[in-house]
Amino acid sequence: MPRHYDVIIAGGGIIGCAIAYYLRKHTEYTVLVIEKNRIGSEASSAAAGMLGAQAELNEAGPLYTMARESRSLFPELSRELKEISGIDIEFIDKGLFKAAKNKKERLRLQQLTDFHNDNGQPAEWISGSELLKMEPMLSKELEGAMYLPKDGQVNPSQLTKAFAQSAAKLGADFLDYTEAAGFEIGRSGIGIQTSAGMFFGEKAVLASGVWTGKLAAQTGLHMPLFPVKGECISLTFLEPVITSTVISDECYLVPKQGGRLVIGATMEAGTYDRKVRAKGVLELLTKAREVLPAIEQGEWEKAWTGFRPQTPDGLPYMGKHPYHKDLYIAAGHFRNGILLSPLTGRWMAELLIGNLQEERLKEFAPDRFAYEKMKG
Amino acid sequence: MPRHYDVIIAGGGIIGCAIAYYLRKHTEYTVLVIEKNRIGSEASSAAAGMLGAQAELNEAGPLYTMARESRSLFPELSRELKEISGIDIEFIDKGLFKAAKNKKERLRLQQLTDFHNDNGQPAEWISGSELLKMEPMLSKELEGAMYLPKDGQVNPSQLTKAFAQSAAKLGADFLDYTEAAGFEIGRSGIGIQTSAGMFFGEKAVLASGVWTGKLAAQTGLHMPLFPVKGECISLTFLEPVITSTVISDECYLVPKQGGRLVIGATMEAGTYDRKVRAKGVLELLTKAREVLPAIEQGEWEKAWTGFRPQTPDGLPYMGKHPYHKDLYIAAGHFRNGILLSPLTGRWMAELLIGNLQEERLKEFAPDRFAYEKMKG
Amino acid sequence: MPRHYDVIIAGGGIIGCAIAYYLRKHTEYTVLVIEKNRIGSEASSAAAGMLGAQAELNEAGPLYTMARESRSLFPELSRELKEISGIDIEFIDKGLFKAAKNKKERLRLQQLTDFHNDNGQPAEWISGSELLKMEPMLSKELEGAMYLPKDGQVNPSQLTKAFAQSAAKLGADFLDYTEAAGFEIGRSGIGIQTSAGMFFGEKAVLASGVWTGKLAAQTGLHMPLFPVKGECISLTFLEPVITSTVISDECYLVPKQGGRLVIGATMEAGTYDRKVRAKGVLELLTKAREVLPAIEQGEWEKAWTGFRPQTPDGLPYMGKHPYHKDLYIAAGHFRNGILLSPLTGRWMAELLIGNLQEERLKEFAPDRFAYEKMKG
Amino acid sequence: MPRHYDVIIAGGGIIGCAIAYYLRKHTEYTVLVIEKNRIGSEASSAAAGMLGAQAELNEAGPLYTMARESRSLFPELSRELKEISGIDIEFIDKGLFKAAKNKKERLRLQQLTDFHNDNGQPAEWISGSELLKMEPMLSKELEGAMYLPKDGQVNPSQLTKAFAQSAAKLGADFLDYTEAAGFEIGRSGIGIQTSAGMFFGEKAVLASGVWTGKLAAQTGLHMPLFPVKGECISLTFLEPVITSTVISDECYLVPKQGGRLVIGATMEAGTYDRKVRAKGVLELLTKAREVLPAIEQGEWEKAWTGFRPQTPDGLPYMGKHPYHKDLYIAAGHFRNGILLSPLTGRWMAELLIGNLQEERLKEFAPDRFAYEKMKG
Repeated sequence: MPRHYDVIIAGGGIIGCAIAYYLRKHTEYTVLVIEKNRIGSEASSAAAGMLGAQAELNEAGPLYTMARESRSLFPELSRELKEISGIDIEFIDKGLFKAAKNKKERLRLQQLTDFHNDNGQPAEWISGSELLKMEPMLSKELEGAMYLPKDGQVNPSQLTKAFAQSAAKLGADFLDYTEAAGFEIGRSGIGIQTSAGMFFGEKAVLASGVWTGKLAAQTGLHMPLFPVKGECISLTFLEPVITSTVISDECYLVPKQGGRLVIGATMEAGTYDRKVRAKGVLELLTKAREVLPAIEQGEWEKAWTGFRPQTPDGLPYMGKHPYHKDLYIAAGHFRNGILLSPLTGRWMAELLIGNLQEERLKEFAPDRFAYEKMKG
Repeated sequence: MPRHYDVIIAGGGIIGCAIAYYLRKHTEYTVLVIEKNRIGSEASSAAAGMLGAQAELNEAGPLYTMARESRSLFPELSRELKEISGIDIEFIDKGLFKAAKNKKERLRLQQLTDFHNDNGQPAEWISGSELLKMEPMLSKELEGAMYLPKDGQVNPSQLTKAFAQSAAKLGADFLDYTEAAGFEIGRSGIGIQTSAGMFFGEKAVLASGVWTGKLAAQTGLHMPLFPVKGECISLTFLEPVITSTVISDECYLVPKQGGRLVIGATMEAGTYDRKVRAKGVLELLTKAREVLPAIEQGEWEKAWTGFRPQTPDGLPYMGKHPYHKDLYIAAGHFRNGILLSPLTGRWMAELLIGNLQEERLKEFAPDRFAYEKMKG
Repeated sequence: MPRHYDVIIAGGGIIGCAIAYYLRKHTEYTVLVIEKNRIGSEASSAAAGMLGAQAELNEAGPLYTMARESRSLFPELSRELKEISGIDIEFIDKGLFKAAKNKKERLRLQQLTDFHNDNGQPAEWISGSELLKMEPMLSKELEGAMYLPKDGQVNPSQLTKAFAQSAAKLGADFLDYTEAAGFEIGRSGIGIQTSAGMFFGEKAVLASGVWTGKLAAQTGLHMPLFPVKGECISLTFLEPVITSTVISDECYLVPKQGGRLVIGATMEAGTYDRKVRAKGVLELLTKAREVLPAIEQGEWEKAWTGFRPQTPDGLPYMGKHPYHKDLYIAAGHFRNGILLSPLTGRWMAELLIGNLQEERLKEFAPDRFAYEKMKG
Repeated sequence: MPRHYDVIIAGGGIIGCAIAYYLRKHTEYTVLVIEKNRIGSEASSAAAGMLGAQAELNEAGPLYTMARESRSLFPELSRELKEISGIDIEFIDKGLFKAAKNKKERLRLQQLTDFHNDNGQPAEWISGSELLKMEPMLSKELEGAMYLPKDGQVNPSQLTKAFAQSAAKLGADFLDYTEAAGFEIGRSGIGIQTSAGMFFGEKAVLASGVWTGKLAAQTGLHMPLFPVKGECISLTFLEPVITSTVISDECYLVPKQGGRLVIGATMEAGTYDRKVRAKGVLELLTKAREVLPAIEQGEWEKAWTGFRPQTPDGLPYMGKHPYHKDLYIAAGHFRNGILLSPLTGRWMAELLIGNLQEERLKEFAPDRFAYEKMKG
């Protein structure tokens, strides 16, 4: 394994792997991805894989725009990654329902329907009885649902693996179980100290999810990131009980290939505790039963946790390091890392190549909470 | 492995292993245990291990008497099995609480307290405030509890393994993953057809839990047995949250070594479905939280099912086969197999040896539901 | 769930599920599949999924012909099942190498190459150096390999699940954890006793793999079937180490999606022992390393066993029961159940419908080892 | 949870938990253990649990002396921890054989036997035929073995858990999934920054195994520590195949409760790679089969890795921090952490209390490789 690369990416989650993929797809840059754990082992594999470009975002702005654009890349990406790596990312294009359990929720969702339509995005209000025709196992108590036909879903572990193996096939190197422990920033290029020795990159990207804040601090940048723990569970059924994703009251039910149903996710800020608590299991099952009573007959499969990387304003950090010209940052995608990964990968690759103006990403600037800026 | 034995036991669950152990402990009989699956893999390892001689039995009768006698064997047995096999059965002697959540339950439990005392068994009514002194994490809403100081608990998998390995050490043979498929009953001795060929026993014992009914049918005996499925879950805690077993409303919480808490068990008759259903998980967690709110902070460990072997009158079958003099039966211990295993093993060994009068076990006669007897 | 069906299939492995699928695809017959365990839990999920129509069969005859025809169904089937059930069966069409480690093996494989060509099937001898160009990680010691470009592979668990869920979607019923315990064969139709009560089928199919022999015996038919235990292991790699399946010396290496490598399989006849033995692990790893030294760096994933249903002459049983006109049999596919499943499903469906002459399946007649025939 | 403690221990492995236990046993100090992962999750639970005070140490010196003294604490400790926490540490006192496969090994082991005897330690040379009487399943090819009757074994996970839960019961606090990220060292006391906020200790102990080097570096101390990866596997048997631990050629076989056999361990320096490689599995099984052919019949259970914390001279670091009077260090126990844990815990507790002279631990001084000292 060489010690010198054109680009070194610190972080082998979905963001780091997507960047490696787009870099190798478009350039001959030598690329190394360094991951302290297993590739795709943290938030990237804990996610449920919803592509909730509309479902997760309720107001106009740069993230809403980015999300829709990133979502539009999946149909082609799905074919492309299958072709290169042989991996099926299980892209499912069956839309998403946000269900209303009472009048108050109905009114809010009807407003949201208008909002999406006003922004030129498809969204439709579905009455309770229509909803039962489309998803007959849902609760008869529901008042209806907002239907978002374009919000699909993928298998996030498969997507991360497909990015990684496609990048590898196209020539990227991967080094797992190796921690980026420190940086030596010279006039040109970046030295990265790791448990496997020193590596040198002409450029380097910090893409370590919630742990990127610590790395940034080592380079003198205050870039706040904090973990929001989420617990998920999965059930299996002999036959699928729903066809589209259903969201209600912060609880989502995502039907996966082969009769699996992923139910997520609790929210707890500020902790790195990996335990699935009984409280979380109870909360998820109780909420899920309200919209889909049939979950009672589902077979328990498993439960797990992950840590979403949250930023103060809810926008990810993407761009150049303010103080070190060869250092780049892509982190903080919170609940939307899977959805945003293709476009993040593409933008960061273009930025590294020099084909994208930094200005284009100004709302996502990594230094927007830097002390100097805050003062200034 | 020989083909001829003094005693062949069909069934390597806790009952079969206990019989093998007591046989080898007291005689030089050659003994073979045949198990179609893994040793101790069914109800024996699904149980929570309560020794609820009083908690599970609310009326005087042969089972109440047997249960207490069997319970009294555990302290000595625990030492004995550790000595022979090196296995710790995790016998815990900290008593059991049956908690009352309301006045009605309180009155019923106070009556039960009197019942046990009237029968010369220790039982004590504990008020809500006293209870919180003894188990401070229990719900403050409880009206109190009946305390049964003698109802301890063990680790049922360890107990089954300890019976098996002690028996093996004393000379018994074990053949796992081998099904007893049919019987050839001669004038003397029993031929047992298995997937590993034919074995001959001077005597044979059917001890296959809920599957014994089918074997009995093959020998012409109608001996009804049906499965009662139970789902259990376990949580873990950095520090134990209760010291004694707590039962409330058909839900029991059994504190195990090292901070594990086993919560059981749902009841569903007539099915062999091994699936843990979401409904069962919800029910167990909901009931457990009512008595012990601290379970919310417990870490999810796992969930499993087992099939209790139920009989029409709730008493196990123990004794000789009515039509074949060399055939014996021990099965149908329902929720009390762990508790009753030592005495069942001892009695069956003595019956096989000829030291116990069949009359002694008349309430447990295997033919008490035989068609002929029923006709009368 | 109804009690009366047009066709009841006893056995929810790959054969039973394939029959159910083709029945529902082509008819309006009501269909019930009864499975004593979990759907697809035995040999169907233990297999490696090679479609070795040529690799596994070295002589002309009905099986060779059937295998090639069945293999040819996979490309279309793969699309069809994905469309109906959403499940990707991971069909990979990259051919298969049978490698020669020495001159003797080389000569034998060169003869086999001629045999396949003589039978109009593609096969090519690849020299050692050419082989390394196609699969660079293979051992430099190999003398070459026979290349079979048409022998692909699938994921057998996914295929079974896809058959089952597609059948279910098309209207078939499934009942798992329910054992077919006995038959009541009337003048018309079949009664099947199960742990969930009695079910009646106008016709019934026995498709329970190696356990079908026992069911057949209950219907008066001697149809010998015996288990051949196989142990398999799997390793994972960051990047795939081979592209095509490689076979050498009874050991096969099957590269799966995402960097998994399945290595199989030991052979042990006559046992139902589910244990993976250290001996098997050693044998598989040692043999695999001889052809592919790079397996040393593979990450251990897991090990498992399965029981191939073997018949005395190596041909499966497919056809009508000799004594009961409404009873059908499909079992005994040995190492080729995955490969043969589509055509078995199709043929059996056609036979049940009445579109296939029994004569067509005469080499596979279920009664070819019946005592009468043997005498006769 | 308070923010201020008398002693804060960074590291919840066996060393940290042992220190917490002895501190609470002997003082009223408030104690907090901070662990970045799960309690006892790293080397502490990966170890096989041999107490090889003689087997692992072949020369006189401070470690040899310490090891014997620590070993002598186990019989009493075993009872004490069971009493307090209810946890059985599975202490087995059946000695250990170091087996010779050829003449050269025999001569070396006979010399070692003399060495131990010369140092007043029991050791005996056992001929091949005698050895087979004591352990009949061992290979008939062995030339004999050195028998060390005092080198017992424990279950390391249980021991760590027992230290932790006993400490907790005696009043220590534990905070898991919390990383000690930095230190603020004032004139008196230590501030520890963690992901759960700042904690203040009058004194603090660094006891984070191989990760202690990095923490020490943050406090200005060069204290080299590097990981030596080890892979282990376990098999299970219906009946135990050996009674005592057997070591041969760097491979050890440790018989655990209930028929488990742990086989360890490979050695690979300088990596944090957690993967169990096929190479390691092959090596362990091959070596183990040479001494104990019966392992072939063992059932595969699982495989795992751990990282032993190695120091340049093989001695652990125990003592005070050279530059900060309230900071203490206990780490680097390499292959002997389980064995040395009781005495390390006791000594460190005494040092913290002020009952042990620093001089007593001078060979283990944490600053013996500090740059200043090295310069001289």
